[in-house]
Amino acid sequence: MLTKIARACYDVNMDENNITEQPRRRSDGEQTHQTILDRAVKLASIEGVNQITLGRLAQATGVSKSGVYAHFKSKERLQMEIIEAAGEIYEREVIEPGLQAPEGLPRLIKLYESFLSYVEREIFPGGCFFAGLISEFDAQSGPVHEAVIAGHREWEGLVVSLIQDAQQRGEIDSGVEPAFLVFQLDAVKDHANFLYTLYRDPAWIERGRQAISRIVTQVSAT
Amino acid sequence: MLTKIARACYDVNMDENNITEQPRRRSDGEQTHQTILDRAVKLASIEGVNQITLGRLAQATGVSKSGVYAHFKSKERLQMEIIEAAGEIYEREVIEPGLQAPEGLPRLIKLYESFLSYVEREIFPGGCFFAGLISEFDAQSGPVHEAVIAGHREWEGLVVSLIQDAQQRGEIDSGVEPAFLVFQLDAVKDHANFLYTLYRDPAWIERGRQAISRIVTQVSAT
Repeated sequence: MLTKIARACYDVNMDENNITEQPRRRSDGEQTHQTILDRAVKLASIEGVNQITLGRLAQATGVSKSGVYAHFKSKERLQMEIIEAAGEIYEREVIEPGLQAPEGLPRLIKLYESFLSYVEREIFPGGCFFAGLISEFDAQSGPVHEAVIAGHREWEGLVVSLIQDAQQRGEIDSGVEPAFLVFQLDAVKDHANFLYTLYRDPAWIERGRQAISRIVTQVSAT
Repeated sequence: MLTKIARACYDVNMDENNITEQPRRRSDGEQTHQTILDRAVKLASIEGVNQITLGRLAQATGVSKSGVYAHFKSKERLQMEIIEAAGEIYEREVIEPGLQAPEGLPRLIKLYESFLSYVEREIFPGGCFFAGLISEFDAQSGPVHEAVIAGHREWEGLVVSLIQDAQQRGEIDSGVEPAFLVFQLDAVKDHANFLYTLYRDPAWIERGRQAISRIVTQVSAT
């Protein structure tokens, strides 16, 4: 999930990755590439994706600007790789743990708990990468904006399917509109993320848990 | 309200404003200053405050870089003026209309309706300036980060006082924790803002209205 963000970006912007065509240099090259990319993802989560230029990254990693250029070719390509790498982390830290819970309502609850835990554990130093990405690119047209919409729709689709599953199991009231429930839950998760990141106070995560629990209780079939 | 953001920024960063010391050039100078600033605020709401450099602004306004420099002296000072100007707009468009409603619960409801209306009317082309500012600066230390915290506390304090007033009037259940209710309401208002700005679809504002109305109904004393 959320890999559509990366895929949509790649479809628009990416060329073939030259590194795979040079097997003898692949290991070293890939390692350096990954090291620079890891740093770029962390920086982007703090400063915003648009702040991460090749020059800024050269300064932050100590790699020469031409070295960074050799790996990413352009600011646009670097940004797309950053978003793809962040998507993989989100999938590993939020989606996969969520989907490991038993089907139905427990899976829905676990998905949001995984999100709050991922914020609290500061997987990204700047808070949830994708909440920040929506805020940064919501009003900026272009491939990242389109990819943010694709990613949001994919997330929304996932949560709607979990809600419908819980409704079919008789765990959530059948009169509840799934898209409205996603809106309510996402509002809480993103707000907890922004305020935790602003204050670094776990009380905001606790408020998020409490608010989500309250919403879930309200829609639970009795 | 929210003027603390501006004040805190000024306390840290601002010198005396030279323009007021040159009365003969004041009118023209101020007008140019305001024109550049208006453009800067709009751009910042779309691209983020950190993207608005003197050079970027010169490019966007057609004023020479040295001309922009003469008005704002530094990127930091420009940013602080942008935030102050945005705070005045927020006060006029959200706070003042909210506070014109009758005291108690109607005032609380009107404050959030004013916010949703201000997003829907696209007062800032990039969505709520301050929701974006929290996201941009939540993980970045410095004067803007501190000012964002001051601004958030000021807003939270205002809403808490409105809730307490409604509780004293017997309109909101006395068992409700005001700070938790602010968290719930703000989560909805900010989420409606981000999704409206992303999709430009009034359905998100309508969802926001519905979610806020539901929360208010739940806490209303019966």
